[in-house]
Order: sequence, then structure tokens, then C-alpha cells
Amino acid sequence: MTTEAEANMPSNDTTEIRALIVRWAEAIRAQNIAGVLADHSPDMLMFDVPPPLQLSSVESYKRSWEPFFASFEGGAVMFNVRDISVHAGGDVAFATALVYCRTADGDGGPSEPNVRLTVGLRKLGGRWTVVHEHHSVPAQ
Amino acid sequence: MTTEAEANMPSNDTTEIRALIVRWAEAIRAQNIAGVLADHSPDMLMFDVPPPLQLSSVESYKRSWEPFFASFEGGAVMFNVRDISVHAGGDVAFATALVYCRTADGDGGPSEPNVRLTVGLRKLGGRWTVVHEHHSVPAQ
Repeated sequence: MTTEAEANMPSNDTTEIRALIVRWAEAIRAQNIAGVLADHSPDMLMFDVPPPLQLSSVESYKRSWEPFFASFEGGAVMFNVRDISVHAGGDVAFATALVYCRTADGDGGPSEPNVRLTVGLRKLGGRWTVVHEHHSVPAQ
Repeated sequence: MTTEAEANMPSNDTTEIRALIVRWAEAIRAQNIAGVLADHSPDMLMFDVPPPLQLSSVESYKRSWEPFFASFEGGAVMFNVRDISVHAGGDVAFATALVYCRTADGDGGPSEPNVRLTVGLRKLGGRWTVVHEHHSVPAQ
């Protein structure tokens, strides 16, 4: 038998994951590194915009934000996530989104999204946890 | 009660998805476009290596392979997928991998993987179906 609560689970999961991504982007804009890492697995796999090809721990992921934040020299970070689409199963999910990301040498930010984002999650101990992120820009 | 078959389901799903990705890469190397599209949803979302930022249908995904194949001018396509890691839930899954991809103007192919791959899947009508792909190279 499926209870009403169980029948609602997929959409609850979708709501939770969407909120997780919104919180994460807020933490990036606030340069709040603890917030950026709050829902991440220690052994997460990161495919980032700049080299290297991959990062295989949340420690290296944490370090990857330092030059990004430093590049703004105290100015406002633009990292606006749009078009979030969540696919959530019982304990595995992924989400896609587009990002308006102002680079340090930009002025005013892009008028169109310029970064693609895919996030992979697992429900661990009852809590959605990021185990994979893929950030990229199209090759020039 | 969990039957033995149910207990094995996650690893069966993992095996099926791994096989799907291996078949897909074989079809790419064979320039067999029907094979490349065999497990894809009509409304899949593609984040590709070259521009544009996104493609939102399997038709545009299909067309995106034409210049890739044409660039080899009848020569062998290199698209070797390594380090496949699958996260499969009941009906949602994602996988990550690295790809050795020879570009048309390369000679002999890369000695290290040079493309990152994330694949998002849903089980639709009992069958794992690709609803998202994200291919990228680090920005220069």
C-alpha cells in the first residue's frame, strides 16, 4: 500500500533538491564556503570549468572556489542559477540548470546564461547529498 | 520483505546502464547514428562540447553528431569511454565517465582522457532512457 505521504515523496524530493541548489548558489554569492559545502559528500566528483579535468574530493572542490572568489577582489559575485530541472528517484537524483556567471574581468555580467550545470545526488542517511557536479562552458 | 531479486535490482540497474553506455560509445565509433540514439528520450537535454549552450531535443542531438562524424572524413572515430561510475536508484540514475576523444585535427589521439561525460537517465516503460547528457572539456 502506498500512503499519501509516500505518493508525495517524488515531488517533496524535487522541492528539497531545488531548495538545496538555491541555498548553494546563495552561499556562492555570499562567498560563504561552509554554506557552499554544506550538502556535499567527502568523495564527490567535480568536473569544473577551469582545468584540471576532474577533482575527486570535497577538499579539492573547496580549494577550487578560492581563486574564483579571490578574482572578484571583494566585489559582488554573480552566480545566478536558472531553469533548474530536477529528476528525483527514491535515493538517486540529478538536476540540470543554466547559470549567469560573471567572470572577474567581465563588466556587469552576461545578458544570457553562460555556464551549464549538472548536479548528481544520493540520499544518504535520509538527506540529499551532492556526489557529483559538472560545470562547463561551450568550447571556443 | 525484500526478495533476492529485489535486493539485486540496484546492481542489475548499474550493469544495464553501464552496458547502455558501452553500446552507445560503440555506436559512435561505428558512426551508427541509429545506435547512438537507440536509448534516448525525444526531449533529452544536451550540453555539448561545441556551442550552442544547450540542445533540447533528440533531433538537434542527432544533428550535432553530423559535423563530428564528417570531421573524420571516413577515418576511424576515437571515442573511448573509461572510468564509468553509475549511481542508480529505482527509476532515476546518473553516470559519470571520462572519454579519450580524438579530434579530427589530432594525430593518433590523446594519451590522457580529454572529455568529461555525465549522463542522466530515467526508467521509462521499464527501460533505462537517456534524458540528459553533459559533455565538456575544461576551459582554456
